[in-house]
Amino acid sequence: MKSEGVIEERNMNGYAVIMAGGKGTRFWPRSRESHPKHLLDILSPKSILRETTDRIRSLIPPERILVVTGRLHSEKVRRDLECIPPRNILVEPEGKNTAPCIGLAALHVRKEDPEGVMVVLSADHFIGKEDSFLKDIYVAGEMAGRGPCLVALGVEPTRAETGYGYLEVGDEVAAIRRKKIYRVKSFHEKPAAEKAREFVQNGRFFWNSGIFVWKASTILAAIERFLPDLHEGLKEIGRVLGTPKEDDVVKDVYKGLEPISIDHGVMEKSPDVLMLKGTFQWSDVGSWDALWEIRGKDEWGNVIAGEVINVRSRNSFVHSPKKLVAIVDVEDLIVVEDDDSLLVCRRGSSQRVKEVVEALEKKELKRYL
Amino acid sequence: MKSEGVIEERNMNGYAVIMAGGKGTRFWPRSRESHPKHLLDILSPKSILRETTDRIRSLIPPERILVVTGRLHSEKVRRDLECIPPRNILVEPEGKNTAPCIGLAALHVRKEDPEGVMVVLSADHFIGKEDSFLKDIYVAGEMAGRGPCLVALGVEPTRAETGYGYLEVGDEVAAIRRKKIYRVKSFHEKPAAEKAREFVQNGRFFWNSGIFVWKASTILAAIERFLPDLHEGLKEIGRVLGTPKEDDVVKDVYKGLEPISIDHGVMEKSPDVLMLKGTFQWSDVGSWDALWEIRGKDEWGNVIAGEVINVRSRNSFVHSPKKLVAIVDVEDLIVVEDDDSLLVCRRGSSQRVKEVVEALEKKELKRYL
Repeated sequence: MKSEGVIEERNMNGYAVIMAGGKGTRFWPRSRESHPKHLLDILSPKSILRETTDRIRSLIPPERILVVTGRLHSEKVRRDLECIPPRNILVEPEGKNTAPCIGLAALHVRKEDPEGVMVVLSADHFIGKEDSFLKDIYVAGEMAGRGPCLVALGVEPTRAETGYGYLEVGDEVAAIRRKKIYRVKSFHEKPAAEKAREFVQNGRFFWNSGIFVWKASTILAAIERFLPDLHEGLKEIGRVLGTPKEDDVVKDVYKGLEPISIDHGVMEKSPDVLMLKGTFQWSDVGSWDALWEIRGKDEWGNVIAGEVINVRSRNSFVHSPKKLVAIVDVEDLIVVEDDDSLLVCRRGSSQRVKEVVEALEKKELKRYL
Repeated sequence: MKSEGVIEERNMNGYAVIMAGGKGTRFWPRSRESHPKHLLDILSPKSILRETTDRIRSLIPPERILVVTGRLHSEKVRRDLECIPPRNILVEPEGKNTAPCIGLAALHVRKEDPEGVMVVLSADHFIGKEDSFLKDIYVAGEMAGRGPCLVALGVEPTRAETGYGYLEVGDEVAAIRRKKIYRVKSFHEKPAAEKAREFVQNGRFFWNSGIFVWKASTILAAIERFLPDLHEGLKEIGRVLGTPKEDDVVKDVYKGLEPISIDHGVMEKSPDVLMLKGTFQWSDVGSWDALWEIRGKDEWGNVIAGEVINVRSRNSFVHSPKKLVAIVDVEDLIVVEDDDSLLVCRRGSSQRVKEVVEALEKKELKRYL
């Protein structure tokens, strides 16, 4: 006897949009301007982008996976994702945050299928419990297919994280295959520490994973309502989509766009936002510290990539693919070796790696950026 | 009016013997089997050996400076010390600690000048206040020239160092140019912490710098008395000194020698040991920690060699001649970059660097040794 929760047809009838923008500041020295986080092999031997793509391929075939990236990285993305048809790699002429990126992808999806559902994913997040993730996405897709709603995937918070956004949920509006879907009452950007603790205790607050599922037509309608300027630009692009003029028009339109996130521009304002309670593990892997949290540790709490001689060192992170590293009597350190640079950072302070990049900019040491 | 203490004739009528043995374990990864500490440029842009040689050249001309080194390093030593006549670089076929090394050099000195005074120096120590050092050496030479005594240079201890040997002095036996010379009552090897504190408070205990001044004939007579086996070997070598047979006989003799230090083998037993109270700064630079102590610090207490971006890091040592290093929010760390290896060590734990070298030996990672 099969459980009600089992999804028998795993091939989902929708599209995936993988957002591969992002810069190389937080994972310096591995990430650089020309080599952003999603191209790094810091979670596994594959790039994070490739992991993300391969994961969703279990549900959605490559022909229906779109990747949106920047001009500077498009060649590397194409090479990394040889499985994806080149025409599915959409190139933004400049980064304008997530709302324009999602709008542009929605145009492509709607053109292919006016009723098409799209799953919006970040290229550079960590997902654990993949099976649960795929089931959650499948169910969110079913919900989104039913009508004009914007489904966010929420994740039960496991700690009072101040680096994430939170969703506060209201009533349960549906349960599909035993997965619960709620109305979202409010959005909360990165909270202060005390607020974050309240959220975790309250039980009705969830991490906003930035994973969204909706019909292309629904998000475009929401953009029309809440971001009319963006919608005007998208209309212009829509008129030339697939013609030789497309590149030039996209370039022109992007020049005039205000950068804005989909959360801030649409989700916080729309009354149609729902949340599916995700059952997977998730991290935005925002720093070397976050990476240490996620990765498997040895018996001394160390996360090691590379050849390391450890003399009494604990709870540290060493990433050195090419050079032997000896760590002697240290604790709570992050050590990252790259061809021309070395980072040694206290664990817990990896947010400050940005300051290194800023200092390099200020000193005009461009070769390290 | 000139002060009594001024030395007018700075050219000393004696020999210098620079002991350049030593291995590459404590300054790993910069020091290696093929590149020991005395060849490193960690104190200044010159090698420590070259610093040592140039320093004593103010007093003793190159023709009267002998350097004793091992077979493995003799070529590098010759290249480093082009000022020294190649025949003055004595090569030991194997390391047998300091007594044989000093005995061998004494044979050479005595052959040139039966009454010759020799100054024994380690190739890899730090000396500060050079002028005082040279005056002290000059005075010790005057004392040694007067008769059969073994003059050690003592250094007033500035902290309860447990890594050094100590000399306990008795009566003052002479004062030459206002410099005091004492009889040595006893030798104390590396003391425990409490003992070291007693020594420092007592006032009659001095660090044994390992710098000795004596006539070649005096030390050979002392070796005859206290190390008769070594003396037999030296006699064999003495008979063929300067002949084509010398190399083979040295090799044969060394094979049979017991390794023993001059301190343990002769100084601790001889009643003729005097100590000149040195007025220079001295460190045996036994570890990366010792190097941090000696070197000039920036306003945050860091010792930096190389290009470093510092975000709130303090009291650390970074040696990276080739690679940019960013240190973020760390304290009391030693970071040393080399072509194929990297050391990250807690400051205060650099004695444990030996354990890294041992681990590399055990793992047969010979290319890093």
